[in-house]
Amino acid sequence: MIGPDDRGLLLGDGLFETLLAEGGRLRDEQAHLDRLAAGCAALGLPEPDRAEAARRMHEALSSAGLDGARAAVRLTLTAGGGGRGLDRPDPLTPVMFATAAPSPKPAGPVRLATASIRRNETSAASQLKTLSYLDNVLARREARAASADEALMLNTRGELACAAAANLFWIAGERLFTPALDCGVLPGITRARVIAVARSAGVPLDEVATGPDALAAADAVFVTNSLVRLRRVESLDGRPFGSDPLLGVLAAALDGG
Amino acid sequence: MIGPDDRGLLLGDGLFETLLAEGGRLRDEQAHLDRLAAGCAALGLPEPDRAEAARRMHEALSSAGLDGARAAVRLTLTAGGGGRGLDRPDPLTPVMFATAAPSPKPAGPVRLATASIRRNETSAASQLKTLSYLDNVLARREARAASADEALMLNTRGELACAAAANLFWIAGERLFTPALDCGVLPGITRARVIAVARSAGVPLDEVATGPDALAAADAVFVTNSLVRLRRVESLDGRPFGSDPLLGVLAAALDGG
Repeated sequence: MIGPDDRGLLLGDGLFETLLAEGGRLRDEQAHLDRLAAGCAALGLPEPDRAEAARRMHEALSSAGLDGARAAVRLTLTAGGGGRGLDRPDPLTPVMFATAAPSPKPAGPVRLATASIRRNETSAASQLKTLSYLDNVLARREARAASADEALMLNTRGELACAAAANLFWIAGERLFTPALDCGVLPGITRARVIAVARSAGVPLDEVATGPDALAAADAVFVTNSLVRLRRVESLDGRPFGSDPLLGVLAAALDGG
Repeated sequence: MIGPDDRGLLLGDGLFETLLAEGGRLRDEQAHLDRLAAGCAALGLPEPDRAEAARRMHEALSSAGLDGARAAVRLTLTAGGGGRGLDRPDPLTPVMFATAAPSPKPAGPVRLATASIRRNETSAASQLKTLSYLDNVLARREARAASADEALMLNTRGELACAAAANLFWIAGERLFTPALDCGVLPGITRARVIAVARSAGVPLDEVATGPDALAAADAVFVTNSLVRLRRVESLDGRPFGSDPLLGVLAAALDGG
């Protein structure tokens, strides 16, 4: 349980990670802990205790009886209690906890709808997985209201950024494209793995700052995150996209890695 | 205590209000509860129980022994537990709680520094007091690092918006100016009272969308919120501002209202 003066609760002052567990193994555990540590540095929070983080995640899996299941493990780190309004106390006493829930592998492609809410690339928080995630909640709500599954978010400059809970890729002319991080994009663990797989396979890949018109020329579009890995985008605002053999190759590489 | 599956804690999915209590009386209590209810409607949360909200705030004051003191009362409403990732459960079971702390009246003027983080006026959250407040925390941190007391935030269009925890006003040529709400501005309770006082006193007041150059022509600048009411701005990024007799008139009207 969390106290009523916790800054994560009161101000969204903290970070989280969501990991896929399969058979009791946390996928990309070190990469997630690296990103959490980088996020703490960016926000001015103390370096997290990685051993404690790992222990809490495994405990959460076990106590939920999910050691043998496909599960989502969420690690949450808050700035802890205290402070006066926006100003943090000195020293900080961060709070870390983990929860686990079943996470069946989603089937089939995803329909996107463009959200009116823009990704605020002027804030460091746009490249972090912070507890201030309400814009993403609201963007997802917009997408659901438009009978879609997930939101496409542009940034305030009108450039492609990401989905509400996934990174965005597209294939055009046998090249892979994804929005550059400084477009207000979370450096997704699966995003990094797709980039690594593409580079090692000799598939050209560009990290770009470009408007949504770039998708009009796309042969195929897909989204990635730690829980679903790779999912094809079936349509954006009702406009359908095709597929591409590269998607199956990438999905197999991600599952095997 | 709050559960580890609370959406306010995990995703900043919720709202808060901060009220000034003096001698056991909550200033502008109905206006704050009206704003909370409007925020719930905007976020798709159920209408809050106003009687319960009032009861919890008064209980928080009493149990902290602050019935006779100048105190800050914070009312927090979260979207409650449950849901799957970003998607909310149906039905929602919101959680409401209140805390109280001494709040001595701050003395003297305030120094502002312009924050690099912009106010995201494309999001409904920019006109609400939400639990996703990290951008404001980070903007305040920037201001402190620049040896100032508070941050001036522009919006993503480069227009004046607000301070990290206050609304902004300036006086130029015997007119009052304040950024319009659709610049990404919280509809502050004290902001509304300043506007009402100005109108009833026949002082011309404009709600404007304008860049920071407008402040170069200002005779005086001030910020307002529920806890400090009205505080003169001494400087912005080291450039000093003067004062104006209207500030004393407004401050007296706010204290008396």
